[in-house]
Amino acid sequence: MNQSTADELRAVIDPALLRACVELLDPERVIADPEGLREFRDPYSHAEWDTHAPGAVVSPRTVEEVQAILRLAARFDTPVWTISQGRNNGYGGPAPRVPGSLVINLRQMNRILEIDEELAYAVVEPGVRFFDLFEEIRRRGLKLWPSIPDLGWGSIIGNAMDHGVGFTPLGDHPARSCGLEVVLADGTVVRTGMGAMTGNPAWPLRKHSFGPSHDGIFMQSNFGIATKMGCWLVPQPEYYVSAELTVPREQDIAALVDVVRPLLLDGTIPNTPIAYNVTLIAGAFSGVPREHWHTGEGALDDAALSRMAEETGAGAWLMRFALFGPEEVVREQLDICRAAFAAIEGSRLTHREWAGDEVVPRLYDDQRPAPAEGPSGAVDRLRQQSDTTQAGIPSLDLLDNLSWDEGGVGGHLDYSPVTELDGRRVLEQTQWLRGLFAEEGLDYAASLMLSPRACINIVSLWFNTADEAQTRRAYDFNATLIRKGAERGYGVYRTHLDHMDLVADTYDFNDHALARFNRVIKDALDPQGILSPGRAGIWGSKWADR
Amino acid sequence: MNQSTADELRAVIDPALLRACVELLDPERVIADPEGLREFRDPYSHAEWDTHAPGAVVSPRTVEEVQAILRLAARFDTPVWTISQGRNNGYGGPAPRVPGSLVINLRQMNRILEIDEELAYAVVEPGVRFFDLFEEIRRRGLKLWPSIPDLGWGSIIGNAMDHGVGFTPLGDHPARSCGLEVVLADGTVVRTGMGAMTGNPAWPLRKHSFGPSHDGIFMQSNFGIATKMGCWLVPQPEYYVSAELTVPREQDIAALVDVVRPLLLDGTIPNTPIAYNVTLIAGAFSGVPREHWHTGEGALDDAALSRMAEETGAGAWLMRFALFGPEEVVREQLDICRAAFAAIEGSRLTHREWAGDEVVPRLYDDQRPAPAEGPSGAVDRLRQQSDTTQAGIPSLDLLDNLSWDEGGVGGHLDYSPVTELDGRRVLEQTQWLRGLFAEEGLDYAASLMLSPRACINIVSLWFNTADEAQTRRAYDFNATLIRKGAERGYGVYRTHLDHMDLVADTYDFNDHALARFNRVIKDALDPQGILSPGRAGIWGSKWADR
Repeated sequence: MNQSTADELRAVIDPALLRACVELLDPERVIADPEGLREFRDPYSHAEWDTHAPGAVVSPRTVEEVQAILRLAARFDTPVWTISQGRNNGYGGPAPRVPGSLVINLRQMNRILEIDEELAYAVVEPGVRFFDLFEEIRRRGLKLWPSIPDLGWGSIIGNAMDHGVGFTPLGDHPARSCGLEVVLADGTVVRTGMGAMTGNPAWPLRKHSFGPSHDGIFMQSNFGIATKMGCWLVPQPEYYVSAELTVPREQDIAALVDVVRPLLLDGTIPNTPIAYNVTLIAGAFSGVPREHWHTGEGALDDAALSRMAEETGAGAWLMRFALFGPEEVVREQLDICRAAFAAIEGSRLTHREWAGDEVVPRLYDDQRPAPAEGPSGAVDRLRQQSDTTQAGIPSLDLLDNLSWDEGGVGGHLDYSPVTELDGRRVLEQTQWLRGLFAEEGLDYAASLMLSPRACINIVSLWFNTADEAQTRRAYDFNATLIRKGAERGYGVYRTHLDHMDLVADTYDFNDHALARFNRVIKDALDPQGILSPGRAGIWGSKWADR
Repeated sequence: MNQSTADELRAVIDPALLRACVELLDPERVIADPEGLREFRDPYSHAEWDTHAPGAVVSPRTVEEVQAILRLAARFDTPVWTISQGRNNGYGGPAPRVPGSLVINLRQMNRILEIDEELAYAVVEPGVRFFDLFEEIRRRGLKLWPSIPDLGWGSIIGNAMDHGVGFTPLGDHPARSCGLEVVLADGTVVRTGMGAMTGNPAWPLRKHSFGPSHDGIFMQSNFGIATKMGCWLVPQPEYYVSAELTVPREQDIAALVDVVRPLLLDGTIPNTPIAYNVTLIAGAFSGVPREHWHTGEGALDDAALSRMAEETGAGAWLMRFALFGPEEVVREQLDICRAAFAAIEGSRLTHREWAGDEVVPRLYDDQRPAPAEGPSGAVDRLRQQSDTTQAGIPSLDLLDNLSWDEGGVGGHLDYSPVTELDGRRVLEQTQWLRGLFAEEGLDYAASLMLSPRACINIVSLWFNTADEAQTRRAYDFNATLIRKGAERGYGVYRTHLDHMDLVADTYDFNDHALARFNRVIKDALDPQGILSPGRAGIWGSKWADR
């Protein structure tokens, strides 16, 4: 189904459905007024667009209420859209794919059902944020670190469901989830893995039960609503090092990738490093407007990039990473990293280190000194972000930095192509992207998330959401990137609501066999097409036939 | 469907189907004579049982031939059963669930399609054995170790599909697989993950594409036939330590588990240790018949167990594990292990160490000295097995040891309950099992596979397959264990063909919601019920209605 068809299909919430929802929930858990709904729009959309405007928002507190809402939606043939916290801004935030959908907001299902210090896991509901889990662990005085992304407001479940990445040794968030409770479109409650046996204590401990393992198919899909999840935690390490490596030249990213890869493959570096280019660092962390660097037409030029590198001290690329473990092991690993990095001419390694017990008191409770104002404080600001995130201490500090152009609300769309973790290929991609961005007169800000064999390049398109033409252009350019990238073999790992069909379409092997497979599953589980139609480009036959 | 119904449903292969298969393949790739079919029976079944006798065996060499066979099976309404190598003896080996099935034997689809040293992965077909991959890596002189189980004859794909475990740092075999090509019941070829984009080089590198991740649902299921898989490999470590810890008393398993758990959680021990009880070690490695230890009625008594511990030097439990990495890191980790284990009174740590380059020349090419004959050589025999397996060097040595009672072919069934990796709980389970076995007059031989949060106890029931009553009793007792274990919250991770329905039935949450979910998926993908009906207890409505 294309977007214009979706627009025509916009549901208007039946007043009888709303009345039934109010009857089921308290009135304050049913939002249908424009003011209340504003919070559930795409925050980075232009104010006058309503392509993804919600019809109403309901906030269940229990699994039974979720089931009841699904029954109502089916009765009134109204599509629902589920969000946990809905904080994946840059990809649409809490907004539904189909305008006018009944949004099931799970923020009030926010119980932490279990935290076990010995076995290092928690069981959470979808409304539990990284903040909440962190605070509860502190409150109980447990020596556990949650693995978190750079912003702490998101849902632990929602983030894992969308293939999120964190920066402790358990940074592969789909992989560190273990066991789901899911409500299917027909209201059936299913528990996956060992949870499929009533009361089995290994539910959050072992991913596979007997027979197929289902967790993966509930991620980035619309096959069910996750209402509980096991979440593995990192035992507080004896020692923690937060470090960064800078390299002076743009093309040094090739050497950096090739030097880091063996260290990731053998676990010397156990977390997911991010390599930022200087445009990202200067843009997100230096606290000065773009005019500080560049005032003419077009993208930042080489002179501006050089000045950025010089004034921030970030080099052309800065890679953050961390080490965790017994002190003697961590010291050896740091030495190994230092020796490996020395092969890159002009590279610089900096680091901070703490005993595990000191980390929260020093980085969270103590006020850390504010970095210098302006570009010379950019790297220190990034360091403060890295030190806390990589230790599982959540914050919202990064939000302060996202406005780049002066005036208006700074928005962004993210293009996130995957490539092999091979220096030549990563450099090739970065040069190709920088060229394309320059042609468009746009700045190329990149964050490369490095796993042992693959690299996800998070490329942010920044725009002023008050400027409709600029916003439109960013959306269009993102679509162009998706298309052109696919021609070069780059698959995208996440995308904005508007581009889900397009991205799904780039996964085209054997006449889109996987998309056809998804439709078969969708039709079998949700023949009425009630549950989050269009998520990840999966619609089901019901919508194709309309 | 229960077993007696399955018996009645036994397919007789239609001669016209056989002729069509011969036309499709060479005649020597279609086996239908009793002699030829013998190889595809359950090797540990009683000779006169034909509950799982194959009807015919066909051996495709290409994906197109697999598709054509599925079309024929559908035309003749004959169930197929797929095997890769079919070596999961103890669980049924190559034998089909429904007697008379057309077995699709994938041993001749045995190409290694790719090995990449830099990114440390291979892409293989289902006929590729651990032996084959190991030999090809050696032939090319690559510094890579495959992760393997203790017997090297199995299929890399088949093992991963059945939730196999290995003993390098990539020992979670479902987790170290990345990207599948699958033929669905209707013949559609699907590629999962990044392979869903035509020609995407990240197929074997990143598990998730855009949208749901499907690999898990093709494991231990009958939703498709895996014809290609990406398989991550371990870069040859600079240094390798193979070690074992013994503890003197049966109840020391509790302390052992609690001491090892933090070392697994923080990655100090990066592989999957196995803790064997002395009955397993004396039975499998001492090369003397059971009479050496015990001649009276009933299970081995305490005196026999004490003598076993004394004569083998294995203590009550022996845990093997390994360390891999830069030499200085490994030395620190070994010291940390030593210090931690010292808390267990009477424990002993032994180890061997090698530079990575020496491992294959020393352990595989050189003839290692034969251990002493009899019980005093048991631990050395186990050490030789551990040294090679944990370094990815395949062998069949373990097969030599499986006959326990004198006379007849030694067979075994494995009961494999999962529990939390908590000392008290593991001890509780082991005492419960030893008691149940003793009541039955059977020996309790246990191998505990320890992952950071869960323990799989592989309990082997040994019997003489020539003795029908003894064999029957083992089958019946396995069923009893499955039932009684489930009452205590133990889920089983793998089981014999005969017990698949029973085990599936123990996963009973919400009136068997997950089984009902599986049936919906099965019906959607394979409405005719052609593909491996009954695998993992999944039949589909077609079979329920017959």
